[in-house]
Amino acid sequence: MNQIVSPEQSRREQELVDRVRASFENAEDPRLRELMQALVKHLHAFVREVRLTEGEWDAAIRFLTEAGRITTDTRQEFVLLSDVLGASMQVIAVGNEAEGNATEATVFGPFFVEDAPRIECGEDMSFGAQGEPCWVEGTVSDTEGRPIPGARIEVWEADEDGFYDVQYDDDRRAARAHLFSDADGGYRFWGLAPTPYPIPHDGPVGRMLEAVGRSPMRASHLHFMVTAPGYRRLVTHIFVRGDELLASDSVFGVKESLIKDFVSHEAGSRAPDGREIAGTWSDVRFDIVLAPERA
Amino acid sequence: MNQIVSPEQSRREQELVDRVRASFENAEDPRLRELMQALVKHLHAFVREVRLTEGEWDAAIRFLTEAGRITTDTRQEFVLLSDVLGASMQVIAVGNEAEGNATEATVFGPFFVEDAPRIECGEDMSFGAQGEPCWVEGTVSDTEGRPIPGARIEVWEADEDGFYDVQYDDDRRAARAHLFSDADGGYRFWGLAPTPYPIPHDGPVGRMLEAVGRSPMRASHLHFMVTAPGYRRLVTHIFVRGDELLASDSVFGVKESLIKDFVSHEAGSRAPDGREIAGTWSDVRFDIVLAPERA
Repeated sequence: MNQIVSPEQSRREQELVDRVRASFENAEDPRLRELMQALVKHLHAFVREVRLTEGEWDAAIRFLTEAGRITTDTRQEFVLLSDVLGASMQVIAVGNEAEGNATEATVFGPFFVEDAPRIECGEDMSFGAQGEPCWVEGTVSDTEGRPIPGARIEVWEADEDGFYDVQYDDDRRAARAHLFSDADGGYRFWGLAPTPYPIPHDGPVGRMLEAVGRSPMRASHLHFMVTAPGYRRLVTHIFVRGDELLASDSVFGVKESLIKDFVSHEAGSRAPDGREIAGTWSDVRFDIVLAPERA
Repeated sequence: MNQIVSPEQSRREQELVDRVRASFENAEDPRLRELMQALVKHLHAFVREVRLTEGEWDAAIRFLTEAGRITTDTRQEFVLLSDVLGASMQVIAVGNEAEGNATEATVFGPFFVEDAPRIECGEDMSFGAQGEPCWVEGTVSDTEGRPIPGARIEVWEADEDGFYDVQYDDDRRAARAHLFSDADGGYRFWGLAPTPYPIPHDGPVGRMLEAVGRSPMRASHLHFMVTAPGYRRLVTHIFVRGDELLASDSVFGVKESLIKDFVSHEAGSRAPDGREIAGTWSDVRFDIVLAPERA
């Protein structure tokens, strides 16, 4: 809602915007100048449109201060803030422009680690993490349908309690691995059925979500990062069709094309790799299409 | 510079904005809903317009993290950030709409304290702070020119080294006071000739200013906060005509109407209160006009 302001008032406000933008005119790096001037334009447009009060500005400063205070090497409140405002997802959208049938990207999240163990196709990435076994398989191909052998596939996920290994105080490495697509572009591995979990919500971001009536829960998902020379890096998830949290994912990561059918199987039945599984298990197919790399 | 994106890409980006805005639809507080939805609109418009990269987003998260780390009870990097982006000044502009000849407002700054000593008209607010003596006088009136007796006038400023009392490690209280306008709306006191100083620039905000070729210096100024029942609170400064920093004040606080003539007087000359001042001194006149309070 734009309020009506007098011409003199409007002139004063616009003059300030112009003056602030001009102060970045001498930046040597043209991209930095562009970013700062655009930031000023949109920040001031926000303040002017909502007629932000000094009390509200105080509250914003307090919010950022508290976010800074709770942030540590393992807890990133500013990333959470970006996530729940959909900004992280918008950056992903901007950086992964639609390319034919290329698989859509989604948020990276804070739980990836570099040193996940390597497994061979068909092996188990859970490494002792608790949860219902899930057989995951598919292919990696380009937008023309040609298989991509040797693509590096990083996978990681939470255990059945909703925690990633790095959230435990011990040094466990579990429910994460990397593998490579085979000569036909195929891949397959044992993982865990994805489970829902809340983003950390005991800080200012959590209090904001509560104040606006939003849930901190993320829809159940399994993370993928897929790289191959000549192709755009793909960071994505797959989600579970039927999950009631799909419509309210707290970081807006869900895309219709990433919702997959996880098929449940009864205890004692035989899995695709011939093994007989004692308990219940599920399987899912995820065919990955990589976009070409742009210069 | 808006880049051209495909219709499908544009649709995906806008769909995300709509989804994020909708997530705030259930906020009970309508003002909070308005603020968050507008924030999302402008934040996403920024990301989309500049095509923000993941690397740039990483840098922004690092910047905020460092700002949080350096912020303490006495060092507020988020306020500095708001200041150097002109956002603080825009909030002041929005909250102090132009009202006839009412004195313009400017930034509050981080150096006001509540418990400044009371002085009588004509007394000295320096309390031992070093600097050239400056006689300050004027009137407080309404926009019809009627004097306002009993207005509370808070004044504070840096010493000749550019530091406020609270920036020293001892508990000194100096170069700050409050007084009241007399029966004719007049006021007068001894202060110090204002001196320029840099905003704290050893943190991420200072590094950003350096990267874009901006100075951290504030133009010389003397702070005022004036309150009287029935009138809008006025927070402002007066600046020194001829100060070479007027055009590049790091927080955009300068307004033409707030630049005053500080008149220099030679050593040994007689001041307006009849005293003979040993060294050089100056004087300045500042007539204050308060806007009526709006419901």
